[in-house]
Amino acid sequence: MTALGPGNEFDRLRAAFGRLGARLVGAGDDAALVTVDGVDLALSCDLAVENEHFRLAWLSAREIGWRAAAAALSDLAAVAADPLGVLAAVGVPEGREGEFFQELMEGIADAATSVGAVVWGGDLVRAAQVTVDVTVVGRAARPVRRSGAQPGDGVWVSGRLGAPRAAVEAWERGETPTPAFRERFARPVPRVREATWLRAHGAAAMIDISDGLVGDAGHLAAASGVALAIDAGRVPVHSAVQAVQAVQAAPAAPAAPADISLMMALTGGEEYELLVVLPPDFGVAAADAFGERFGLPLTRIGDVVEGSGVTVLRGGKSVPIVGGYSHF
Amino acid sequence: MTALGPGNEFDRLRAAFGRLGARLVGAGDDAALVTVDGVDLALSCDLAVENEHFRLAWLSAREIGWRAAAAALSDLAAVAADPLGVLAAVGVPEGREGEFFQELMEGIADAATSVGAVVWGGDLVRAAQVTVDVTVVGRAARPVRRSGAQPGDGVWVSGRLGAPRAAVEAWERGETPTPAFRERFARPVPRVREATWLRAHGAAAMIDISDGLVGDAGHLAAASGVALAIDAGRVPVHSAVQAVQAVQAAPAAPAAPADISLMMALTGGEEYELLVVLPPDFGVAAADAFGERFGLPLTRIGDVVEGSGVTVLRGGKSVPIVGGYSHF
Repeated sequence: MTALGPGNEFDRLRAAFGRLGARLVGAGDDAALVTVDGVDLALSCDLAVENEHFRLAWLSAREIGWRAAAAALSDLAAVAADPLGVLAAVGVPEGREGEFFQELMEGIADAATSVGAVVWGGDLVRAAQVTVDVTVVGRAARPVRRSGAQPGDGVWVSGRLGAPRAAVEAWERGETPTPAFRERFARPVPRVREATWLRAHGAAAMIDISDGLVGDAGHLAAASGVALAIDAGRVPVHSAVQAVQAVQAAPAAPAAPADISLMMALTGGEEYELLVVLPPDFGVAAADAFGERFGLPLTRIGDVVEGSGVTVLRGGKSVPIVGGYSHF
Repeated sequence: MTALGPGNEFDRLRAAFGRLGARLVGAGDDAALVTVDGVDLALSCDLAVENEHFRLAWLSAREIGWRAAAAALSDLAAVAADPLGVLAAVGVPEGREGEFFQELMEGIADAATSVGAVVWGGDLVRAAQVTVDVTVVGRAARPVRRSGAQPGDGVWVSGRLGAPRAAVEAWERGETPTPAFRERFARPVPRVREATWLRAHGAAAMIDISDGLVGDAGHLAAASGVALAIDAGRVPVHSAVQAVQAVQAAPAAPAAPADISLMMALTGGEEYELLVVLPPDFGVAAADAFGERFGLPLTRIGDVVEGSGVTVLRGGKSVPIVGGYSHF
């Protein structure tokens, strides 16, 4: 959606952080991890800008607020932190400082309370684009980092992927996305309770896949000093995404419907699901227990192996993934 | 500078916060005051947007970063908190994600380290306007709130006022502000150490005057349930502001030079000085000690009295102040 894509943005942020040297503390995971007077905290911020991350025609004010807060709260989930409070800095064009802003703040508060947090404060200014930055703070006594994956561990993902990207593509085509797609884009659920469960069941490394499965898998692999081998056939694609793509794919399309939906699942952002590395003895029975507890699938999609980077395999052959997009 | 002025913005924020009910915790001062596992924290965020709070032609990237961070850190000073860390969410137009962004982050880090804090994290996205939200976290074991002023206390202000507004007005006229004015706008100093000293010397209530002296005095008066009587003749106006205004005022100007510079001091924002209420026994000798310690004047400008609101007196007569602007 934005030319300053996730991968590029990550590089830019890393370059700027690199220049800060010792002035930068606690970074390297989805949330900053710091200790204040013996209390371990996780903190993150997420900035959402109109026409870059959403359009006003797509979402209500309340959904814009929810979505921005959920994105930041997802960073706390990614380190298995317990959300405590949020601060919201909001910029709005003239005429939106009344009911629109109030509804937006309600959406932020709704998302916060959905995971046991409260609103601690905020700021409101004039801006040309609706702009929402949500900063979240959580307790993180035993955080799960990106860096704990070891060869032999399993790679798992929560949920079914592809729906948010399908919603965006429908909107961009001038269509109305199906309610199932729209809901996944407009009301993403930060997987806070799921993350706590996963930590209790041995999670060795974790990241949210807000920048897309393959891109974020790359960040986790790099932090852990390992490679991730992902089996494309095991990636859980949202069933409605498969169905819709099967209908829409033109006969002359260069890719088969299954390829299109798989690409959405592998590279589409805005998922806010968890990519988690679990020990070898974490098996199907444990995943079923997760599924029953949260009404959400937990799927093993690959293995941690020696090496570096992310390999996506299909039928034993490597699928090239370049720049966050997969070329089938 | 923005039509969504400080007073109006404050009302909008208060209205939205009012709807949150029990979902809002810790608000009411310049920084949110919360306790996490026995540790008292102060948190605040400040959002700065190109063409609303600054123009790219006025400031370097590094100054934009410094200024945004200093504004947020000033909120910690206002409650006498000890800054620990900052998170920076930055939006930039295409082409500014490289050196410009890195310099901006350096400015944020400079401001943080100037008061003993570090950078904990950040976010970078594409936006049409350069957008910087800085969230700050500090230790606040014994915060000074807005609500502690009592009749009989003295009203004091740090620094000399009017220079930031004079800089903005020079730029808006297409002129180059004098270095002294420019510095006060581009590199505001969060009064963190000064605030700690003031707390140790009995500060009963405090607020920063980022929204202008009279407007912020009104917030303090309301929180304390008192009135503030400010003597216009005592308000410390930056000497260069007085000098420049004396030269620039046209003969036909409706206001005398002294009135114009006083108006800037009373209502100009972006000061980041402290308005502090000190007990009756805090006198000139103590203020001199402050001045020697910090190289900054501390001036008694009025009294806390029974009642509500802010009265600005000149020669015993009340000066009407409406909507953040003074009408002489």
